[in-house]
Amino acid sequence: MFDPASVVLVGATDRSTWSKMAFDNLELLGFRGAVHLVSRSGGMAHGQQTFKSATEIGKPIDVALLMVPIAGLMDALRDIGAAGVRNAVVLAGGFAETGDEGRALQDEMVATARSMGVRLLGPNCLGFINFNGGGACWTGSMRTPPLKGAISIVSQSGAVATVMKHFAHQHGIGLNVVVATGNEAALGLADVVDYLVDDPATRVIAIFAEAVRNTRLFREAAGRALLAGKPIVILKVGRSELTVQAAQSHTGAMVGDDRVFDGVCRQFGLVRVRSIEELMFSAALFDRTGVLAPGGLGVLSASGGMGELAADYAHLEGVAMPPLATATLTQLRAILPPMASPANPLDLTGAVVNNPDLFRLCMEALQSDPAISALVCVFDVPTALNGDWAPFAVGSLEAIGKFRTDGRARFLVVSNTVKTVSDRSREAIDAAGLPYLPSGLDMAVKALRHAIDWSARHRATQAPAPANASSSWNAVSTRSADSVASALPRSERETVEYLKGFGVPVVPQVLAVDEAQAVLAASGMDSAVVLKIASPDIAHKTEAGGVLLGLTGEAAVREGFRRIMTSVASAMPAARLEGVLVSPMRRSGLELFVGVRLDPQWGPAIALGLGGVWIEALADVSLRLLPVSTADVTEMLGELRGARLLKGFRGAAAVDIAALSQVVVDIGRAALGLGPTLDALEVNPLLAADGRIEALDALATYQPSGELSK
Amino acid sequence: MFDPASVVLVGATDRSTWSKMAFDNLELLGFRGAVHLVSRSGGMAHGQQTFKSATEIGKPIDVALLMVPIAGLMDALRDIGAAGVRNAVVLAGGFAETGDEGRALQDEMVATARSMGVRLLGPNCLGFINFNGGGACWTGSMRTPPLKGAISIVSQSGAVATVMKHFAHQHGIGLNVVVATGNEAALGLADVVDYLVDDPATRVIAIFAEAVRNTRLFREAAGRALLAGKPIVILKVGRSELTVQAAQSHTGAMVGDDRVFDGVCRQFGLVRVRSIEELMFSAALFDRTGVLAPGGLGVLSASGGMGELAADYAHLEGVAMPPLATATLTQLRAILPPMASPANPLDLTGAVVNNPDLFRLCMEALQSDPAISALVCVFDVPTALNGDWAPFAVGSLEAIGKFRTDGRARFLVVSNTVKTVSDRSREAIDAAGLPYLPSGLDMAVKALRHAIDWSARHRATQAPAPANASSSWNAVSTRSADSVASALPRSERETVEYLKGFGVPVVPQVLAVDEAQAVLAASGMDSAVVLKIASPDIAHKTEAGGVLLGLTGEAAVREGFRRIMTSVASAMPAARLEGVLVSPMRRSGLELFVGVRLDPQWGPAIALGLGGVWIEALADVSLRLLPVSTADVTEMLGELRGARLLKGFRGAAAVDIAALSQVVVDIGRAALGLGPTLDALEVNPLLAADGRIEALDALATYQPSGELSK
Repeated sequence: MFDPASVVLVGATDRSTWSKMAFDNLELLGFRGAVHLVSRSGGMAHGQQTFKSATEIGKPIDVALLMVPIAGLMDALRDIGAAGVRNAVVLAGGFAETGDEGRALQDEMVATARSMGVRLLGPNCLGFINFNGGGACWTGSMRTPPLKGAISIVSQSGAVATVMKHFAHQHGIGLNVVVATGNEAALGLADVVDYLVDDPATRVIAIFAEAVRNTRLFREAAGRALLAGKPIVILKVGRSELTVQAAQSHTGAMVGDDRVFDGVCRQFGLVRVRSIEELMFSAALFDRTGVLAPGGLGVLSASGGMGELAADYAHLEGVAMPPLATATLTQLRAILPPMASPANPLDLTGAVVNNPDLFRLCMEALQSDPAISALVCVFDVPTALNGDWAPFAVGSLEAIGKFRTDGRARFLVVSNTVKTVSDRSREAIDAAGLPYLPSGLDMAVKALRHAIDWSARHRATQAPAPANASSSWNAVSTRSADSVASALPRSERETVEYLKGFGVPVVPQVLAVDEAQAVLAASGMDSAVVLKIASPDIAHKTEAGGVLLGLTGEAAVREGFRRIMTSVASAMPAARLEGVLVSPMRRSGLELFVGVRLDPQWGPAIALGLGGVWIEALADVSLRLLPVSTADVTEMLGELRGARLLKGFRGAAAVDIAALSQVVVDIGRAALGLGPTLDALEVNPLLAADGRIEALDALATYQPSGELSK
Repeated sequence: MFDPASVVLVGATDRSTWSKMAFDNLELLGFRGAVHLVSRSGGMAHGQQTFKSATEIGKPIDVALLMVPIAGLMDALRDIGAAGVRNAVVLAGGFAETGDEGRALQDEMVATARSMGVRLLGPNCLGFINFNGGGACWTGSMRTPPLKGAISIVSQSGAVATVMKHFAHQHGIGLNVVVATGNEAALGLADVVDYLVDDPATRVIAIFAEAVRNTRLFREAAGRALLAGKPIVILKVGRSELTVQAAQSHTGAMVGDDRVFDGVCRQFGLVRVRSIEELMFSAALFDRTGVLAPGGLGVLSASGGMGELAADYAHLEGVAMPPLATATLTQLRAILPPMASPANPLDLTGAVVNNPDLFRLCMEALQSDPAISALVCVFDVPTALNGDWAPFAVGSLEAIGKFRTDGRARFLVVSNTVKTVSDRSREAIDAAGLPYLPSGLDMAVKALRHAIDWSARHRATQAPAPANASSSWNAVSTRSADSVASALPRSERETVEYLKGFGVPVVPQVLAVDEAQAVLAASGMDSAVVLKIASPDIAHKTEAGGVLLGLTGEAAVREGFRRIMTSVASAMPAARLEGVLVSPMRRSGLELFVGVRLDPQWGPAIALGLGGVWIEALADVSLRLLPVSTADVTEMLGELRGARLLKGFRGAAAVDIAALSQVVVDIGRAALGLGPTLDALEVNPLLAADGRIEALDALATYQPSGELSK
């Protein structure tokens, strides 16, 4: 579909701007395949004879662009289906995005297409362009000849796809395939991404998304892309409630919980960005550098000020900028004038104006430094090579162009500020063979951060997985093997017992139905005890007067039992009271929160955070989809703002991260074992104290029957 | 100096690129004043007769550009001084940036200039350009004719000034004055800013800074600018240790504590940015909108996707995007096609392609909405107005150009992504009278956030100041009236007593020199007590075994006194022990930290944060220079990540912010009262509990004698 050898434009007519644009685009792209036109009224269009029906063409056709209005769509679909066309792009709007009536119409169209064996892109859709192959069904304008490359774009908004396309062209970024998916009645974002992962002409995938519909296919494709070393960069809207509303009125898309999506990106190696600029420049950087080796960033520039900015950006983005090795410093001292002080970032000083070859010499020196795996030369390729600046620019371009990377350290030439690449500058860049990123220095370091993170994650998929930490995307795609619990735990007591069955360490608890049992249970514990009401009907025990802490001695326990039963009975007369749970009182330690929640789009997701004010005042949690591996959990812990508390704080011992990770993995397994009706499972707190990790409290809730998850 | 009517170029020769550039620049700028040339060897240069000495010229000269090498500099200085020139720009490098020898040379030059009454810019400096006046002493290249405007640039790096200048030109941003300050041997950043605050041709000041030397003048100028409604946008390097090193090797600048500088920006209304792009686009937005009225952002675009992005950016930046009033919605429904659903952000839908007047009609409707004070229309002015897109672009430009703002709601046209403004597009923009910001949507919302914050702060300076909260910059410039303490407090006990004298509420404490006194003191307190060692020699009391908490009853106090005296005497045998401080034990509450520290560049700065893990694990503090007003402190509290804890948390009562702010102001006054030898004053914790705010512990430390602060 996206690399056709023949195209039919259905509804071709000189009176339609869309038709004219679609036809002209094929010419502008230099499409060498067959272009057929179909018009019900026959005659000429765009200087070419039309057919009244696709069945008259009598040749194989790879894809049809349907530019007919809604009224004629079903007929047109049947016609191309009968002609053996298996792929169609539908331009017309007026379907699901307009309400229930439109949705019914859309469903009918999908059913018709399916019955004819036709794959459908759209409706309400600008179509696709293949820059390398030249094939296109694109009803937007293309003002400029294509700049061919290896970055493919998928966008759920046609207008944004157009903006991305223009932006790429203006900044010398070559493209392979651009697809706008419109209403996604049949083919959706995930299908296109899935295709592009296997497309050899695509090295990087750039996405604009409003909502991911086929989340299962999407994450499988993302996992495959990571494994294959093909980066996916994604700009997804939906950070605010307002956006959710806007998206709903826009294409009827559901915009999911943004924080879950953040977790998905981290888990499956997607690079999430916040702007079209960051999207395209990150994709361009990935295209130019590929997978980065571990190591740091080396920067050289003709200005001390720009070097200082580079150091600031590296600091802000957490990119290592290692000090130079002694050998490198010695080399540089021999090259540079005496007033220069060699360092990373390296200031070539004004001396470079009279001796542009300093660029090449210094880059060679920096490249030889073993700590540097990415080398950035800050230099503006002028938009137009004229004026009296030209001698320096031309000389520098030549000098930089003579530099040869050794392949280990990746090399980039980055503009001072974001800069257009004109036709003339592109010629100069190509002539010098420069890996040029005209993003400006700030954006370049952001993109480098993405590349460093993604490269590390990609490398991790290449290492043999440890026995207990299989790659999580793989685990997701095969689903957890644990079978669903036969009887669902409902009370705290049942939930805690259930968790125990999955190897989750829980605080001992004994159910006492009378004072004597409570006293007996307490006497078996060698510390003060905690009493908690046991009832399947009470979620907030403290508020109901159902919790007493730190009781010591028979009298206190006896009296405590009575007080709890009386308080709760008076606060919640309808609740069924099973008795009181007796547990040993634990010393204070580091409280964690683990919660599993069913996300309507992504399925069960696990949230992990520090308890108390951390989660309540800072919402300091990390999210992932289930199941998670211990490696996932370790990474989640590292994302917490309060992460350093885990390393021991104010004299507390460091938490055993490996043990903690395993506990969280087991809680996740337990949650999956609760089956598709689970709404939420919370372990709060999970206490790390005295070298012990223990769930002190847990509760599971379920969806009202009939509302099963997908 | 920066708007001269006559210029002399000293060291003019055809053999020097600098000389040629300086001369050509004056021509390119259309300078109408007199240009004189001085060359020791005489003869012609740049097609004009030179003088052998400036004294031969015989006409008044406003500024001299000295392009002579170091060896001839003193003579040249004396020559122009003798000729009555009162301003000079020194190009040559090789001074303080090269080490001690160069610094001595620089000092000698400054002394010579001073003796001749000559104001000096540089050395090691590209000079200045006045785009409106046409005067310039600029030894860099200017490739393009000037784009005149009201933004003035000051940069401590000549190369960065050049990058800023080019960037401005490429994006249609007009400039007034550009100054590169070089080594700042005499005139510095603060002097230039101080001048620009009063320059009527400057509406916005954009700064690139490595280090602020004259901090007192700088903050006074910043205060005056805020009061006058003249925004200052600043890009300052020094966020990382690495940058500090780079800057030191670059121009010998000291880069101060970055967090203190952040506080300075907040306190004096400076807009701090992280990139050259953000600097120039923020300045451009300020230039186009001026002071914003309170209210929210309205966005309209021809693409739902861009509207969604706008909503995301507003959410991320904390910019209000209010829902539209019913009357606005009604108006919009009458204008838009039925498939559009009016909302903020507003999607004009594809209908705008055939009816560009929708732009104007919808902007008029949005402008009438009382909740909207800034209106953004997302639209790309094409770089070249050709190709088949032109009809829509031209029609839209016309329609948008017809829109007239009512002045209340500020109006901006913003490009989808960052975009170059070509000469042709500038003509179209000027013809349509568009307030165009080609920054792209993401950057535009960031810049709007700056404008909203700055406008609120500017408005606050216009309101009559309450009696107890005089504008803090003013207070700083007049310095605190409190006189310096006669005897400096050294121990905790003395410090706490000293704070009490400034109205700071402190926990009662009684010094007991024996057990009996301790018991007596404790018996007068109606709660458990805390015992702490009293010694001028012990800063870390707990570590020395000098603190006991929660003691009740005579026996416990008696035993406690003995234990403390014994433990401390054994842990720190050399310490002078005055006895034990007895205080009532306070219930746990919200712990705050207040610390005053002498910053070597900015003077005494106050840090405020939540105590415990907040400050230790998150470094969650806000900083300001002293003195602070209650308004400053209230703002500082709002900046804390844990700010919501102040509003009451987990059943705790909300903290009285007004009372807390006054306490912090008083601690600041007390710190200033400790005079110039103060190194640090810490109150930790300041406890807010049970509706009471109290300092529980305090300590002052001083600089070793002889190291007085500036």
